[in-house]
Amino acid sequence: MIRTTSVHDARYALDGQAGSDAIHRDPVYSYAVTRLSADSHTGTGLAFTLGAGNELVCAAAARYADTLRGLEIEDVMARFGQISRQWADDPQFRWLGPHKGVVQLALASVTNACFDLWAKKRGVPLWKLLVDLSPEALLHTLDLSYLEDELTEKDALALLEKGRIGRESRLPILQSGYPGYDTSVGWFNYPDEQVRENCRRAVAEGFTAMKLKVGSADPERDIRRAELVREVAGADVRVMLDANQQWTLPQALAICPKLGNMQPYWIEEPTHPDDILGHQTLAEAIAPLKLALGEHVPNRIVFKNYLQTGSAGFIQVDAVRVGGVSEFLTVSLLCKKYGVPVVPHVGDMGQLHQHLVLFNHLGLGHEALFLEHIPHLKKHFVHPATVRDGVYLTPQEPGSSCDLKDL
Amino acid sequence: MIRTTSVHDARYALDGQAGSDAIHRDPVYSYAVTRLSADSHTGTGLAFTLGAGNELVCAAAARYADTLRGLEIEDVMARFGQISRQWADDPQFRWLGPHKGVVQLALASVTNACFDLWAKKRGVPLWKLLVDLSPEALLHTLDLSYLEDELTEKDALALLEKGRIGRESRLPILQSGYPGYDTSVGWFNYPDEQVRENCRRAVAEGFTAMKLKVGSADPERDIRRAELVREVAGADVRVMLDANQQWTLPQALAICPKLGNMQPYWIEEPTHPDDILGHQTLAEAIAPLKLALGEHVPNRIVFKNYLQTGSAGFIQVDAVRVGGVSEFLTVSLLCKKYGVPVVPHVGDMGQLHQHLVLFNHLGLGHEALFLEHIPHLKKHFVHPATVRDGVYLTPQEPGSSCDLKDL
Repeated sequence: MIRTTSVHDARYALDGQAGSDAIHRDPVYSYAVTRLSADSHTGTGLAFTLGAGNELVCAAAARYADTLRGLEIEDVMARFGQISRQWADDPQFRWLGPHKGVVQLALASVTNACFDLWAKKRGVPLWKLLVDLSPEALLHTLDLSYLEDELTEKDALALLEKGRIGRESRLPILQSGYPGYDTSVGWFNYPDEQVRENCRRAVAEGFTAMKLKVGSADPERDIRRAELVREVAGADVRVMLDANQQWTLPQALAICPKLGNMQPYWIEEPTHPDDILGHQTLAEAIAPLKLALGEHVPNRIVFKNYLQTGSAGFIQVDAVRVGGVSEFLTVSLLCKKYGVPVVPHVGDMGQLHQHLVLFNHLGLGHEALFLEHIPHLKKHFVHPATVRDGVYLTPQEPGSSCDLKDL
Repeated sequence: MIRTTSVHDARYALDGQAGSDAIHRDPVYSYAVTRLSADSHTGTGLAFTLGAGNELVCAAAARYADTLRGLEIEDVMARFGQISRQWADDPQFRWLGPHKGVVQLALASVTNACFDLWAKKRGVPLWKLLVDLSPEALLHTLDLSYLEDELTEKDALALLEKGRIGRESRLPILQSGYPGYDTSVGWFNYPDEQVRENCRRAVAEGFTAMKLKVGSADPERDIRRAELVREVAGADVRVMLDANQQWTLPQALAICPKLGNMQPYWIEEPTHPDDILGHQTLAEAIAPLKLALGEHVPNRIVFKNYLQTGSAGFIQVDAVRVGGVSEFLTVSLLCKKYGVPVVPHVGDMGQLHQHLVLFNHLGLGHEALFLEHIPHLKKHFVHPATVRDGVYLTPQEPGSSCDLKDL
């Protein structure tokens, strides 16, 4: 039984220019951490912020977490989709969203703690719990409301059943590891020489994909740095460019074709994350160059619209931004229906998502593309994700690998 | 000079079933109230919530308000568009949005206090301040970022200049009053007999438009109540039906044509406010029946998308939901470009919006359709809006009529 619940405001200063991008220039990586203590296990769930306002997410999470006291985690997870919907539809709190902003981040934190506790209770890593669930049991953890035009319960069940087909042939990934990519080569504030050096190091460490931050006020700077990365990394490495919403639509329409010369694998967050039709216009104009988006997309309904417009070549849903593991899985189902790869943004530094992409591959049949790797908070996790020779080693400890030291 | 800033958490319990709708069943009408004290005037700005979480909006608003201390309000308003953008792009806080949820409500509260102080400093009601501003001065209060594909500064200026044409012929509305409509006839929890009685009273009071809450789990209840209102109100009264997001898209597609039999003036918030493409599908299916939406739409970018899809017959932008008066005006300009009427939702009970619709009519040439009237908090305002014979009497006191008693 869940006996106590608590929410902690955990903030970690970063060294130097790490974490900087065109819009977030002084991040303090922070978590609103929900902890659910039940008999011999404690579930930990994270939502990610950049510092200021983390306390608001904590306060909101406490409202949801309080409702769990006295409940058995197995009972909670047997009807988690309903519970999640009740939280999101809290008659007063809902006004602050719905399904977005602080209340949605809070939902992520509490939801993720539930999934963590569930896996710990069962004594298995989260990826294994998810893979071993029956399609019906997994369906019961989801809130599919407002997706009735695209993903009914019946549709979801069919996708889950179909996803299991051929799973045996995909199991070797548990031994070989899930491919990672290095986000840290080209933070926005890094000087050219540091970017060059980081690229060399990433290639030497075995990464076959890496990311550069663009979105400068000076398009020539973006183009120069992008070509620099391509030159150092070579033709075979996948290079992703991330504009962090810094372009207007007319700017994006002008610069993307120029950046296309260095053959980026994708261009990420070109403009405002709410501008669904703007992304559609851009995607159509720059095809076959592809867009990646989702870091700031708050919920399944907006993702549904992005998929319906065909503007997203890659979906970067983040389980510490949307309503937690449950909504991440829902969005992954939608993506499967549309044949669009899921490549999460990792506000969790990959700790939780290493489990989720394994499930997406093994349980839904999503391609095992690669998972972003951000090492900056490694020392703070009890079980830090291990990336070796460019791959995430499969986590073996029970739970979702989100426990933090010193909480 | 702005010497002190403060934010207050003001909550007002409602009587009985007032304020209830299909999703918000127990509202406590609440304001995050920003106060800016400068020499001999105090500016008051509101953001509206339904109770829980109002304290989160207050905390977020304090972060923005703090930056105003020591500044002259005339200097602030001369470059308010820039300041607003800086607040919305706060490198850490932005993560909690962007431009949505708690941080956006906070932006509304502080922005509205700035406009109120500005009007008080000039000794005029806000509507008059706005009407008397030059197009350039008004433009400087706006943040048009992420609208570059639809509304450049040049476009906005042209609309503002064009909007002034024929203003003389519209001035009589200041004497005759702006038409109101009664939202309070059919709250969700009211029994049929009370709805019937309220309709009779509203017609007797001179209202020519009124609203009924629908979105019941039982479509027959909705149809019965809608026909009841039409029967009591007669054929000439405009009746609006408000579903408060309670339908799935397939449900909306099924029930809207049936409700169409009683000839509603619009159907409001049929489904989730983020589902831009869902609204497009519905609008196309039920034309010429029209949709009204915007109560929960957080910013200009989402409104831009709604206008681009052609799904909104009426835009219900609310200045205590979007980033305040400034973004309300921006959205009104967008609507003018698209020829779509602005009929605000009034989280402020009409106090602030009575000024804004007068400006929209006199300054932009928007049709003077009608403004929602919600009387429940009348006794708490220093200068309550006065609705007589179905029209809002033009406010004459300096400022935006948002001062609350007992703060």
